[in-house]
Amino acid sequence: MNLGFTIPKSGTLDLVSLGALIHRIDPGIIPFRKATNFAIHVSGGEYNVAANLADCFGLRTAIATAMVNYPIGDLIAERVRAMGVKPIYRRFEHDGTRGPNMATVYSDQGFGVRAPVVFYNRSNEAAAMLKPGDFDWDTIFGKGVRWFHCGGIFASLSETTSELVIEAMRAAHKAGVICSFDLNYREKLWKTAGGSDRARQVLGAIVENVDVLVGNEEDLQKSLGFQGPEIAASSKLDPGIFLGMIQQVVERYPNIKIVATTLREVHTTNHHSWSAVAWVNGHHVHAPTCELTVLDRVGGGDGFASGFIYSLLNG
Amino acid sequence: MNLGFTIPKSGTLDLVSLGALIHRIDPGIIPFRKATNFAIHVSGGEYNVAANLADCFGLRTAIATAMVNYPIGDLIAERVRAMGVKPIYRRFEHDGTRGPNMATVYSDQGFGVRAPVVFYNRSNEAAAMLKPGDFDWDTIFGKGVRWFHCGGIFASLSETTSELVIEAMRAAHKAGVICSFDLNYREKLWKTAGGSDRARQVLGAIVENVDVLVGNEEDLQKSLGFQGPEIAASSKLDPGIFLGMIQQVVERYPNIKIVATTLREVHTTNHHSWSAVAWVNGHHVHAPTCELTVLDRVGGGDGFASGFIYSLLNG
Amino acid sequence: MNLGFTIPKSGTLDLVSLGALIHRIDPGIIPFRKATNFAIHVSGGEYNVAANLADCFGLRTAIATAMVNYPIGDLIAERVRAMGVKPIYRRFEHDGTRGPNMATVYSDQGFGVRAPVVFYNRSNEAAAMLKPGDFDWDTIFGKGVRWFHCGGIFASLSETTSELVIEAMRAAHKAGVICSFDLNYREKLWKTAGGSDRARQVLGAIVENVDVLVGNEEDLQKSLGFQGPEIAASSKLDPGIFLGMIQQVVERYPNIKIVATTLREVHTTNHHSWSAVAWVNGHHVHAPTCELTVLDRVGGGDGFASGFIYSLLNG
Amino acid sequence: MNLGFTIPKSGTLDLVSLGALIHRIDPGIIPFRKATNFAIHVSGGEYNVAANLADCFGLRTAIATAMVNYPIGDLIAERVRAMGVKPIYRRFEHDGTRGPNMATVYSDQGFGVRAPVVFYNRSNEAAAMLKPGDFDWDTIFGKGVRWFHCGGIFASLSETTSELVIEAMRAAHKAGVICSFDLNYREKLWKTAGGSDRARQVLGAIVENVDVLVGNEEDLQKSLGFQGPEIAASSKLDPGIFLGMIQQVVERYPNIKIVATTLREVHTTNHHSWSAVAWVNGHHVHAPTCELTVLDRVGGGDGFASGFIYSLLNG
Amino acid sequence: MNLGFTIPKSGTLDLVSLGALIHRIDPGIIPFRKATNFAIHVSGGEYNVAANLADCFGLRTAIATAMVNYPIGDLIAERVRAMGVKPIYRRFEHDGTRGPNMATVYSDQGFGVRAPVVFYNRSNEAAAMLKPGDFDWDTIFGKGVRWFHCGGIFASLSETTSELVIEAMRAAHKAGVICSFDLNYREKLWKTAGGSDRARQVLGAIVENVDVLVGNEEDLQKSLGFQGPEIAASSKLDPGIFLGMIQQVVERYPNIKIVATTLREVHTTNHHSWSAVAWVNGHHVHAPTCELTVLDRVGGGDGFASGFIYSLLNG
Amino acid sequence: MNLGFTIPKSGTLDLVSLGALIHRIDPGIIPFRKATNFAIHVSGGEYNVAANLADCFGLRTAIATAMVNYPIGDLIAERVRAMGVKPIYRRFEHDGTRGPNMATVYSDQGFGVRAPVVFYNRSNEAAAMLKPGDFDWDTIFGKGVRWFHCGGIFASLSETTSELVIEAMRAAHKAGVICSFDLNYREKLWKTAGGSDRARQVLGAIVENVDVLVGNEEDLQKSLGFQGPEIAASSKLDPGIFLGMIQQVVERYPNIKIVATTLREVHTTNHHSWSAVAWVNGHHVHAPTCELTVLDRVGGGDGFASGFIYSLLNG
Repeated sequence: MNLGFTIPKSGTLDLVSLGALIHRIDPGIIPFRKATNFAIHVSGGEYNVAANLADCFGLRTAIATAMVNYPIGDLIAERVRAMGVKPIYRRFEHDGTRGPNMATVYSDQGFGVRAPVVFYNRSNEAAAMLKPGDFDWDTIFGKGVRWFHCGGIFASLSETTSELVIEAMRAAHKAGVICSFDLNYREKLWKTAGGSDRARQVLGAIVENVDVLVGNEEDLQKSLGFQGPEIAASSKLDPGIFLGMIQQVVERYPNIKIVATTLREVHTTNHHSWSAVAWVNGHHVHAPTCELTVLDRVGGGDGFASGFIYSLLNG
Repeated sequence: MNLGFTIPKSGTLDLVSLGALIHRIDPGIIPFRKATNFAIHVSGGEYNVAANLADCFGLRTAIATAMVNYPIGDLIAERVRAMGVKPIYRRFEHDGTRGPNMATVYSDQGFGVRAPVVFYNRSNEAAAMLKPGDFDWDTIFGKGVRWFHCGGIFASLSETTSELVIEAMRAAHKAGVICSFDLNYREKLWKTAGGSDRARQVLGAIVENVDVLVGNEEDLQKSLGFQGPEIAASSKLDPGIFLGMIQQVVERYPNIKIVATTLREVHTTNHHSWSAVAWVNGHHVHAPTCELTVLDRVGGGDGFASGFIYSLLNG
Repeated sequence: MNLGFTIPKSGTLDLVSLGALIHRIDPGIIPFRKATNFAIHVSGGEYNVAANLADCFGLRTAIATAMVNYPIGDLIAERVRAMGVKPIYRRFEHDGTRGPNMATVYSDQGFGVRAPVVFYNRSNEAAAMLKPGDFDWDTIFGKGVRWFHCGGIFASLSETTSELVIEAMRAAHKAGVICSFDLNYREKLWKTAGGSDRARQVLGAIVENVDVLVGNEEDLQKSLGFQGPEIAASSKLDPGIFLGMIQQVVERYPNIKIVATTLREVHTTNHHSWSAVAWVNGHHVHAPTCELTVLDRVGGGDGFASGFIYSLLNG
Repeated sequence: MNLGFTIPKSGTLDLVSLGALIHRIDPGIIPFRKATNFAIHVSGGEYNVAANLADCFGLRTAIATAMVNYPIGDLIAERVRAMGVKPIYRRFEHDGTRGPNMATVYSDQGFGVRAPVVFYNRSNEAAAMLKPGDFDWDTIFGKGVRWFHCGGIFASLSETTSELVIEAMRAAHKAGVICSFDLNYREKLWKTAGGSDRARQVLGAIVENVDVLVGNEEDLQKSLGFQGPEIAASSKLDPGIFLGMIQQVVERYPNIKIVATTLREVHTTNHHSWSAVAWVNGHHVHAPTCELTVLDRVGGGDGFASGFIYSLLNG
Repeated sequence: MNLGFTIPKSGTLDLVSLGALIHRIDPGIIPFRKATNFAIHVSGGEYNVAANLADCFGLRTAIATAMVNYPIGDLIAERVRAMGVKPIYRRFEHDGTRGPNMATVYSDQGFGVRAPVVFYNRSNEAAAMLKPGDFDWDTIFGKGVRWFHCGGIFASLSETTSELVIEAMRAAHKAGVICSFDLNYREKLWKTAGGSDRARQVLGAIVENVDVLVGNEEDLQKSLGFQGPEIAASSKLDPGIFLGMIQQVVERYPNIKIVATTLREVHTTNHHSWSAVAWVNGHHVHAPTCELTVLDRVGGGDGFASGFIYSLLNG
Repeated sequence: MNLGFTIPKSGTLDLVSLGALIHRIDPGIIPFRKATNFAIHVSGGEYNVAANLADCFGLRTAIATAMVNYPIGDLIAERVRAMGVKPIYRRFEHDGTRGPNMATVYSDQGFGVRAPVVFYNRSNEAAAMLKPGDFDWDTIFGKGVRWFHCGGIFASLSETTSELVIEAMRAAHKAGVICSFDLNYREKLWKTAGGSDRARQVLGAIVENVDVLVGNEEDLQKSLGFQGPEIAASSKLDPGIFLGMIQQVVERYPNIKIVATTLREVHTTNHHSWSAVAWVNGHHVHAPTCELTVLDRVGGGDGFASGFIYSLLNG
C-alpha cells in the first residue's frame, strides 16, 4: 500500500519517543481507599510505545525524557533498561522534599461494573520542565532513526513541552524521520493546562508536523476542534463515524497521511470487544473484532499504537 | 513531681494535634530502586502522637489538619478513623492532576549496615496551605481539651503553617490547655524552606508559647541556635550533654517547664540501645536503657513523645 | 411515592443496626482443605447494612452488639471504626480458652462451577448472650435516630436475641423510628436453633413489629410459613412469584408497608444477573437487570438492603 | 546408660501420640488487632511430637485423636498425612454452626520486646469429647508400638480426656510400650478446667503411669504440687534448681525413670539461649548451651520432647 | 452397561499409576520472562489420576515412580503423602550438580487471548531411567489392585520406560487388573524421542495391552497413525469425528473395550465449553456440555480421566 | 601503591566477565521440602561481579556467556539488561524438553542455626558447551576493555570451558587487559567434573595467566594444591594463615601480583563478622572487621571481589 511517505529502511534506532516517564501506583482490583499494598509500574503514554516495540517486537528504540537523580528515578531507569529501551536523559537533581519529581499516576484496575480510577500527582514534574534546546536532536536523529513518536499527554504538561515536540518533529523531518502523534486527549490534564481552547491551539500547531495521527473521533473533536458526525453510530465498533471525520482532518492537515484508532465496546471492566480502523493515504483498513478478557485496561491505546507502528515499520 | 503547670483533669478530648497527614510508600527491606511492591502507611510526626495515644493508650485524641477530597485522602481518612482519632479537617478539592495533594513520604526500612532512606514529594501539599483562621480554635478548645501538640515538621511546611501553630498555641493557653512541641529538625525540609536561619527564627517564635519541649541536643542547636557542649559525651546514651544545654534553654524561654529527648545508640539498623532523659521543672529524670530489636525505626521519636505525654496526662 | 409511613427527616444517627459482629476466615478461591493463607474480614448481616451506609453513602450509622475484650475483639473494633460506624457495645470478658467468643464464619469465594462454602464456629458466641435490658434503647433512640435495622441471622442466635429484637423495635416505634428486618433465612443456623417450626414462631413474632421487610419467596416460605406460588416462574429474574405472595404477607402483617428482594440468576460463581423488586405500599417497583462479574458473593444481599434503605432515607 | 526400662527394639510404629489436633491462626509478627492476613498451621502439643519424629527423623508415628468431618478437619487431615503421621481418628459430624469443632489457637510470633500472644477458641471442641472406650488400644498397641506419648494440654480438656490418658497408658504398659508425658502446664487451660487443685489431682493420677516425664520446675510445682527450691538459681540456664527437685519426684513416683526439661534464657522474643537437662535413672545429663535466633517460639518445647524421645528410641 | 471386562470388586488398592513425578514452576498469569515469583506444584500426567482419585474421591491409590534423595524429592514426596497417594518408589541418589533429577515443567496459566506456555527441563530425569525389573509387579498386584493406569508422557521418556509400561500391563492382566492408558500426545516430548514414527511404534505396542484408552482424534492420529475423518465437524463439541474413528481402532486393537475423550471448545484461556464422549463396548455415551470458567487448564485432561475411571470403578 | 601492573586508564568497557548465567530458585527462610513459593533470581559467580560493578558502582561492564532462546533465557536476559550489563551472548536453541538449559541453582537462605542449602540442576547446561572460538575476543577487547574476570565455577563446567578461559585471558593480555580469577572452589561441582586432581590441573593452567587471584586458604589448597600452614589460627578473622601461604603462591606463579580474600567468622546464618586481607605486590592490606546482619549470604564472595576490583579500577 502506498503510505504517502517513505520510511527509512534501516537505522541505528527504529524509533525514538519523546514523553514523560511516570511511576504508577497500582492497588490491583482493590479501590484505593481500601488498599494497603501496591505495585509500582513504570509507564508513560509515549514511553509505552518505545517499550512495547523493544520488549515485544525486538526493535531498537529510545526514550528522550527527563530523569531525576533520586531513588524513584533509579527505580524507573532500571525498568527502562530492563525493557531494552535506550535512555536519552536530561537529568535533574531532587531537593529531597518537593522535587523536581518523576510524576505519580494512581490507577487501580477496576472490576466488573467498577471502572478503573485514574488520577495524578504531576506537581513539580521534571518532565514538564523539558524545553526546546534540552536535547541535541541533530545528533540523535543523525545516527539513523526511522520513526519519531510523541503524544498529547506530554504536550499538555507545560508550554515548553509542546514547543519541544514541535522542535523535535522539525528536526526529525529534516533527517527524514517519520513522525507520529497520539492525541490521547485527557480531560484532567488539559483542564489544569489552559482548558480545551488551549489544547486545540497547542495540538493544532503540533499536528501540522505529523505524518501519522492516532486518535478516535472524540480525540479529533476535543483535541483539534473537528465536528462530530450528524448521525449516530450503530455501535462503538462501527468505523463509520471515525472515517466520516477524516475528510475534514486531511483537508486542514494535508501533511497527515495516516489516521488510525481503536474501536472499543466496553461490556464490563474485564470484557471488551476491540477492533481498529485506519485511513491510510485514502484507503480504509478495518481490523477484525476481537473479544478480550481484560486484566488491566490502562495503556491499551499505547499498545495499539505500538502494534500499528510496528506493522508500518515492518512493511 | 511539680511540673510547673497544671494539666486539666478531664475534658472531652485528651489531646489535639496539629500537623500534616501523609502517606508513606514503604518497600520494606528492599531498597527503592529494586522494589516492585509497597505498603502504604498513614503517618505524620504530629499525627502519630494523637494516633498512638488513642490506639495504644485508649485516650481520646483529635488531629487538626488538611484533607483532600480524592481517593488518597479517603484512604488516609479511613486509617485515621481506624486509629480512633477524631478528625478536624479543613477540606481541599483535588484537580485530578497537580493537587493540592496529601504529601508522599518515600521511606524504606533499611537492613543491617544499610540505614533507612527517606525522601518526600511534598510539592503542592494541602497541609502547607493551612493558615491562621482555618480552624475555630475557640470552639475546639472550648469543649474541654487537656493538651495541644505540634512539631517542627508542620512548622516547616510554609510561612502560614508556622503562623497557624502560634495561633493555635495562644488559643490553647487561653483555654488552659498545655502545649507541647517536638522540634523534630529535618535538614531536608528546612533546606527548601529558607534554611537554618529561617528555622531558628520560625521555631524560636513558636517555642515562646511552649510548655513541654521535645528534642535532643542536635535539635536544640539546629532549631534554636543553642551552643553545644564543649566536652564530648562518653556515649550517645550519656544524658550529660543534653542536660548541660538546658540552662541556656530555660533562661531564654522561661515558659518551658519540661524538655525531654530519647538517647539512642544505633548499633545496626536492626539493633538500637534506647534510653530517654527529661528535665522537669528543675529535676532530672533518666530512663533505664533498653535493647531494642528494630523492625522499622521510622516514627520512633513520635512514639517516645506519645509515651512521655501519656505519662504526664496520667499523672 | 407514598410509603405508608414517615421517615424522620433528620437525626443524630441515620440508622442503628442490631446484630452480631463476626470475623470471616477467607481463603479466596482456594477451597479450605487446600488453603494455607487467609484474610480476615469483619462481617455480620445486620452490621453490613450499617457499614455500607456509612462507608459507601456517608450516612451516620451505629451498631448495637456484643464486644469481647480480647485481641479478636480489638481487631473487629478497629474495622468498625474504620468503616465509620458508631459502636454501641455490651462488653464481655474472654476466659482465654473457651469464650465468650466473637463468632467465626469460614467462607471461601468459590470459583466457576464451584460455589462458595460457608460454615461457622458460633459456639459460645458473645452475641448470642445479648438479651433484653442490655441496651438502653430509650437513650439510644432518644438522641434522634431515623431507622432501625435487624435481621434473621441475629434473631436465630438464641432465645434472648429474638426477644431483644422485639424489645428494640418496640422502643424504636415509640421514638418514631422506622424498623426494617431482613429475613435472611439460613438453614444451618435454624437447624441448630429449634428448626423451621421455631424459626416461623420467632420470626413471625418479630415481623409483627416491622415496617420494611427484606426477603425473597424462599425466605417468606421458610421464615414465615407462607405458601409458594402454584405456577413456575419463567426465570429467577421474573418478579411474578415474589409479587404473587405479597397479598398473603400484608394480610397477615398489615403493619408491613414495604417488601423487597433481589432477583438473581446465578450463571456461575463469577457471573450473576441481578435485578430487584419491591412492593411499596401497594405499588410494584422493578429494577433493571444488571450483569455482574462477581468477585465474592458473600454479603451481596446485605448490599442490596443497604442500597434500598439508602434510597428510602434519601427520599 | 541404664534407663531403668527397656524400649522395644522394633515395631510397626515407633510412637503413638494421644492429643488434640488444632489449627493455629498466625498473623506472623503483626499483633492480632492490626492483622488482616494469617497463615493456618496444624498443631497440638502431643501431635507435634509425632509429627517431628516422622518428618524430621523419619520414624513411623501415629496420632490418636478426634477428627471432625468438615473442611477444617479435611485441611488438618491433609497436613497430618503430609507430615507422614498415621491417623487414628475418632470421627465427629459438624452441625455447620456450633460444632463439634477442631479447636482454634490464635498465636502471633511476637517481635523483639513483644512476646507472642496466645489464646484459644476451644469451645465445643471435639477432642474434649474423647473418652475411655473410644480407641481400641489393645489392637493399636498389639501391632507393635515402641512408645506412647501424651501431655498436660490434652489432659486438661475435659474429665474424660484425662481418664482416656490413663486408660491408654495402662494398655500401653500391658503391651510393653514405654509411656512419656509432657506436663506442659498452661494456666489458661486449667483456669477454666477446675484450676490448679484439679490440675494436681488429674495430673498426679496420670503421672503414676509414666516412665518418662517432661517438664521444668514450674511445671513440677504447678502440675504436681512439688515444692520449689529454697535457693535462687544463678540463671535460668542453671540446672541446679531442676535437679534439686527430682528427689521429691522419684520418691513420690518411683515409676518415673527419666525427667527432662529445657533450660531457656529468653533475651528477646527473637534471641534465646537454650540448654536442656535430664535426670536419667539417677544420672544427670546436661546439654551444652546453644544461642538460638528464634523465628517463632511456639511449639519449641514439643521440639525438645521430640528430639529427646528420638535419642532414647535410637539408643 | 456391559463393559466387556470385569473390574475386581475390591482390593487393597483401587488404582496404581505408573509415571513420572515432576515439579511445575508456575508464575500464574504472568508470562515467564516478566515473572519474579513462582509457585511449585507437584504434577505428572499419570500421577494426577492417582492423586485426584485419592484426594477428591477418597479412593486408595498408589504411584509407582522414581524418587531422588534430595530436597526437591522430599518436597515432592510430602505432597504425594498429602494427597493420600501411596508411594512405590525406586530411589536414586542426586550428585548435587547434574542429577538424576526430578524433572521440571515450566508452565504459566495464560490469560484471555494468551494461551499457557509449557516447556520442560527433563534432562537427566530419574524417571526416564526406570526400566523393566525395577518394580516387583507380582507383589504389587498380588495384594489386590483393581485398576492400573499409565500414559503417553511416561512412555515417551526413554526406551526403557515404554518397555516398563508393557511389563507392568502384562503383570496387571495376569492378576486380573484392568489397564487404562491416556495417549496424551505431546509434540515436544516425542520430537526429542525419535519423532512421530517412533511414537506410533512404541504406543502401538503398548496399546495392544490396554482395556480402556483415553485420547481424542488428534491423539489417535498422531499416536497410533489412524486416519482422520473426511468430513469437517460442525464444532469441537461434536462427537461425530471421534466416534467415526473408533471402528478403525477396535478393528486393529480388539482388546480395547472403551475409548473416551473430552470435547473442548476453547473460547479464551479462561472460558472453555467442555463435553466428553465415550465408546463403551459398542455403545456411545455423550456427556452434556458444561461452560467452565478456567483458572488453570494444565492437567484438565488428567482430571477427565480421573472422573471417568472413578465412575467405572464405582459401577 | 605499586600494583605490579598497569590498568588501562579508560576504555569503552571497564570489565568483561566470562561465566554462566543461572536462575536461582529461592524459597527464602523456608527449607525446600516445606516450601510452596519461590523467588527466581538471576545469578552466576562471574556475572555477579559484572552486575555489581554496573549496578552499585556505575561502571560499564559486559558478560560473555551462553544464552538459550526460551522463556527462562528471556527472563534472564531482561534482568541482565536491568542491571546495566552489556550482553555478549553465544545463543542456543532449546528443544522444549531437555535443553540446552540455563542452569538452575536451588538455594534457600537458611536461618539461625540452619545454614543455607545449595544444589544444582546443571544437566545439559548451555554454558558448559561454550568452547574456544565461540567469542571473537580480539574484537571484544579491541574496543577498549580495562579488566577481564573469570572464576572457578565456570572453569569446572566442562573441558571446553576451562580451555575457553585460557583463550580469553591470552587475548586479554595481548590487548593489555588485566585478568582476575576467583578460585571459588565448589566441592560439588568438581566432584562430578573429575574430582580434586583434575581441579588442580585445570585451575593451575588457568592461574598461569592471572594477574589478580581471589581465594582463601582453603581455595588455595584445594584448587591449586598448596600446603596449608603448620600452626592454627587464633580465629577465622586472623589473616596470618592466608598471608603465610602467599610465598608459595607467588613462587610458583610469578605472574600473580595480587592475592585477596575475605575473612569470615560465621556466628549464625544471620550474623557474620567480616574482614578481608590482600597481598598486593609484596605489601599486606588488612581491612577492618565489620559486624554484618545477614539476609542472604549467597553471593557474598562475589560482592567482595566486586568491591575489590572496583577499588583497583578506581585507583
